[in-house]
Amino acid sequence: MDLQTIVTETWNALADDRGSGNPARYIPALAAVDPRKFGIAIATPDGRVAAAGDVDEAFSIQSISKVFALALALEREGSALWDAVGREPSGDAFNSIVQLEKEKGIPRNPFINSGAIVTTDRFIGNRGVDAAVRDLLDRLRRMGRNPAITFDEDVARSESEAGERNRALAWFLADFGRLLNPVEEVLSVYFRQCALSMSCRQLAESALFLAFDGSDPVTGQRMCSASRARRINALMLLCGHYDNSGQFAFEVGFPGKSGVGGGILASVPGRAAIAVWSPGLNRAGTSLLGARALAEIAQRTGWSVFSGPLPEG
Amino acid sequence: MDLQTIVTETWNALADDRGSGNPARYIPALAAVDPRKFGIAIATPDGRVAAAGDVDEAFSIQSISKVFALALALEREGSALWDAVGREPSGDAFNSIVQLEKEKGIPRNPFINSGAIVTTDRFIGNRGVDAAVRDLLDRLRRMGRNPAITFDEDVARSESEAGERNRALAWFLADFGRLLNPVEEVLSVYFRQCALSMSCRQLAESALFLAFDGSDPVTGQRMCSASRARRINALMLLCGHYDNSGQFAFEVGFPGKSGVGGGILASVPGRAAIAVWSPGLNRAGTSLLGARALAEIAQRTGWSVFSGPLPEG
Amino acid sequence: MDLQTIVTETWNALADDRGSGNPARYIPALAAVDPRKFGIAIATPDGRVAAAGDVDEAFSIQSISKVFALALALEREGSALWDAVGREPSGDAFNSIVQLEKEKGIPRNPFINSGAIVTTDRFIGNRGVDAAVRDLLDRLRRMGRNPAITFDEDVARSESEAGERNRALAWFLADFGRLLNPVEEVLSVYFRQCALSMSCRQLAESALFLAFDGSDPVTGQRMCSASRARRINALMLLCGHYDNSGQFAFEVGFPGKSGVGGGILASVPGRAAIAVWSPGLNRAGTSLLGARALAEIAQRTGWSVFSGPLPEG
Amino acid sequence: MDLQTIVTETWNALADDRGSGNPARYIPALAAVDPRKFGIAIATPDGRVAAAGDVDEAFSIQSISKVFALALALEREGSALWDAVGREPSGDAFNSIVQLEKEKGIPRNPFINSGAIVTTDRFIGNRGVDAAVRDLLDRLRRMGRNPAITFDEDVARSESEAGERNRALAWFLADFGRLLNPVEEVLSVYFRQCALSMSCRQLAESALFLAFDGSDPVTGQRMCSASRARRINALMLLCGHYDNSGQFAFEVGFPGKSGVGGGILASVPGRAAIAVWSPGLNRAGTSLLGARALAEIAQRTGWSVFSGPLPEG
Repeated sequence: MDLQTIVTETWNALADDRGSGNPARYIPALAAVDPRKFGIAIATPDGRVAAAGDVDEAFSIQSISKVFALALALEREGSALWDAVGREPSGDAFNSIVQLEKEKGIPRNPFINSGAIVTTDRFIGNRGVDAAVRDLLDRLRRMGRNPAITFDEDVARSESEAGERNRALAWFLADFGRLLNPVEEVLSVYFRQCALSMSCRQLAESALFLAFDGSDPVTGQRMCSASRARRINALMLLCGHYDNSGQFAFEVGFPGKSGVGGGILASVPGRAAIAVWSPGLNRAGTSLLGARALAEIAQRTGWSVFSGPLPEG
Repeated sequence: MDLQTIVTETWNALADDRGSGNPARYIPALAAVDPRKFGIAIATPDGRVAAAGDVDEAFSIQSISKVFALALALEREGSALWDAVGREPSGDAFNSIVQLEKEKGIPRNPFINSGAIVTTDRFIGNRGVDAAVRDLLDRLRRMGRNPAITFDEDVARSESEAGERNRALAWFLADFGRLLNPVEEVLSVYFRQCALSMSCRQLAESALFLAFDGSDPVTGQRMCSASRARRINALMLLCGHYDNSGQFAFEVGFPGKSGVGGGILASVPGRAAIAVWSPGLNRAGTSLLGARALAEIAQRTGWSVFSGPLPEG
Repeated sequence: MDLQTIVTETWNALADDRGSGNPARYIPALAAVDPRKFGIAIATPDGRVAAAGDVDEAFSIQSISKVFALALALEREGSALWDAVGREPSGDAFNSIVQLEKEKGIPRNPFINSGAIVTTDRFIGNRGVDAAVRDLLDRLRRMGRNPAITFDEDVARSESEAGERNRALAWFLADFGRLLNPVEEVLSVYFRQCALSMSCRQLAESALFLAFDGSDPVTGQRMCSASRARRINALMLLCGHYDNSGQFAFEVGFPGKSGVGGGILASVPGRAAIAVWSPGLNRAGTSLLGARALAEIAQRTGWSVFSGPLPEG
Repeated sequence: MDLQTIVTETWNALADDRGSGNPARYIPALAAVDPRKFGIAIATPDGRVAAAGDVDEAFSIQSISKVFALALALEREGSALWDAVGREPSGDAFNSIVQLEKEKGIPRNPFINSGAIVTTDRFIGNRGVDAAVRDLLDRLRRMGRNPAITFDEDVARSESEAGERNRALAWFLADFGRLLNPVEEVLSVYFRQCALSMSCRQLAESALFLAFDGSDPVTGQRMCSASRARRINALMLLCGHYDNSGQFAFEVGFPGKSGVGGGILASVPGRAAIAVWSPGLNRAGTSLLGARALAEIAQRTGWSVFSGPLPEG
């Protein structure tokens, strides 16, 4: 069966459940999104995108941005980044605080908030906030093949206003001497990065490098080395969904990263990059319909990093 | 390059470092093992085993047995097992206690000790200790194609004598009402299961089912369903090496499970099962040379669940 | 106003609320106690006991026994005891486990269960279980001026049967090498000690030594040195009621130790020893009516270690 | 023996050890203090002060200010304060973070930093920072009978610059919705309060109200009600020295509160208020010589809340 048919059938199979789950409401811009939005896009190395539903409407990618930030920080810092942030799963939010304290300000991985703040700090480096933000946008626009990709200033401002927890984490990191830049500067980039606005189609296209050893098979552009791409996939699989990562690996079977905006970005090594979007979240903060859509796609395609390569043809 | 050459070259490349790392010394039987033992065996679906070094000498597989126990308990209990034990990574040993207490006696996953004790309890079920032990041996002998596979009674007795921590965990579980069988009965099976004695060759052959969707491609025997095999792989990747799982996924890139006896069992979905053995451990309790051998094999073969399928031919 | 009037009025003021709170139900012997029992006894250095209600009926003193065990272990071991158990408050039960693990098996204080198990182990020392139990009884009979004081064998057996949590703690301690005697031997004394059966009158008389610098002002018998008596008072004040110690110090204002049997023993330095009994517990596991009775007595007498000595006369 | 002799002899007995311990060095103003400073002052209800050493030199009282802030916040808020902050000991700094998270932003007590930040916030209430600071100074000047008492602006600024940990705590509290005022406003008062500069003599005189049921026996001024004074004493005894409170209660035997500036304020109910100062700290952050001086005074006077009132005359 071809991919477009699979995507269409998956969308149809779940469309009646649009609106299930609970959209994030901690900032007005997220609470205002129509909860019935639902999009699926699969980008493949032949340059095509199999798509269904709301795939061209930009939404707030939130924590999905941590994947791009990690790739960029790794390219900038190299393996030295791993002195500042770990590569192990962290358990739930409670444990991530306990461990941050126990491990003297070294976050467990780049996908929990404290780890993402450190990653952003390293991505900024010594060049200042403005240069870093320009570079981030520039890279994403090239990867997403779309010069209009930008962040939503309203969302960024709301994130900052509702950012008490992230401020607490950043000050903890500063207390342990783990940040190179002043707390508010790091956060100003972090909040904008979370406020990046992209469509399913743009996301899937931007992330093909993850599934193809670091370079976009369509444009030939390299985002990072092959071994770094593999390692980002490993981190997504182990830590991409907070305390729900095991469940996700179990039910979907390939690397993914979710955001509270309702998006999930997945990488199927050697095959495709997938982006889904549906605002309602499950209890672990992952898109409810999005996770079901990915499980359905895994089922219908047979894709899983935990089974052998399917016979070709 | 053919697999046998890769195995031989890997063995040769590391042979000078035999004896590095620190063998487990908490029981005499482990402390007495020659620290320079080193074996590598790769079983493939064509029925061949590429091997180098001490691949036919049985050693104490210890926590590797948790993989088999999980497969058997899952077959017996079905998905109901997941009501008694979770599927999420646990962080370090400290966290696993904290979480056991916080989550009211539901261990985070079947590969930490508390989770393995629950798994063993469910595998015993209501048929009593002796029947369960017979069944365990019977299944392993069939999978390992060797009627001589057995457990080392000395090791089992020593494990029991040095088993204070496991007793504490089991009584905690009992306090939360999580065990079906009396603590000492569960532990008597658990300690014997940890004392299973197998060679690299037997281990690799026994575990082909993991890499081939639940059934042994050589004998055609089914150990568990395809989806369960995939899920065990997922658990091995996320939780197979205690607080070193992220590091292992990062550096090796496919599912594995280590034991303090110095063995590591790995599954390369669709390709092979690998067993390595070298008694010296790294700080996280994983075989030092074993982990290096697997990283080397991953490098030389290009095998990784995080990159695409290699071009055939 | 004389003490007997205060006791009578306190009893009368609270009598209508007999039966409030929730009696412990984890063992049948405790669940079977009439929840409307209510006794108050104040022993003074002149040899008199001001009493009201059920003061001559023996009940299970449970954790109150930890005070006597501490006094006896201190006399046996001297200050070396403090190498095995700390003197700091522990927070709640969750924290006491976390800390036991973090502090490598040194319990925070002798009044949490792990600390009491260590104290009992040191009280046993190298003389064996039977000699230790005889000594414990012998000392209590002398202090309580009553050769009939004994423990309830039914309760001790039930405690043992329901003792999963204490077994887990004891095995943890053993895992850290903190016990001199085998786990089950230590527990057999510990469970019997918890099953000691005493009346309010006996308890108050037995504990006068705490309020009078280590020796009973009536019989002249010395239980421990003056400085040890003071230090036991300090521990009772800081840690006598688990995670409710601050609240108790706040509302009552003198050292006390509660037991899940519904008894509370209090020491008013320089003035009196008080025992109250009412089986219904508050959420923190302290006798609800008992704590109210002590607050009432504190109010009516003006006794508090946190205010100055009242003018005499 | 009269108090002045006891103070003189205590000072002489310890004078050779001046300079022991490690002064706080996290801000320049503290690091610059002469480590050999050593003062002892005991204020009694007859208006006299027994003193020895550096008793008239002002030093940074740091966390001792939490006692005054608590008294003032209690007077302002009444018992409603206890909805925002607990009254139980917290264990070590690690646990205080764990518990803050576990208990959803309710600090365990007003003497850990998070609790003191909440107390300060409630003391500010809705009247703004400037009015609160004026009121604080005004009250302390009256209690200390000295209009020159003020805070050290340099220290306040340094505290703020080195205040990453306190900022983290304050943002955590804000994240849980526990602060009435903006984080930076609360901290601006908190840092100034920590920077209060007082001499031993002023401290001892200011704190007589604690030992005498809420009012200064010399001036007749009331600082708080009798029951609140008792309760502040209870909190000082249970939580006055972080994770060293049990040890302090054990060795000294009356309520105290230490500050990293090397001061300790103690209250001996019904008898006296004591202030000691020596900059070198022990591992728990309490003045090393100061704690020894208080133990010595306790020994020589026989004062202890854990033994009976001494015979008069």
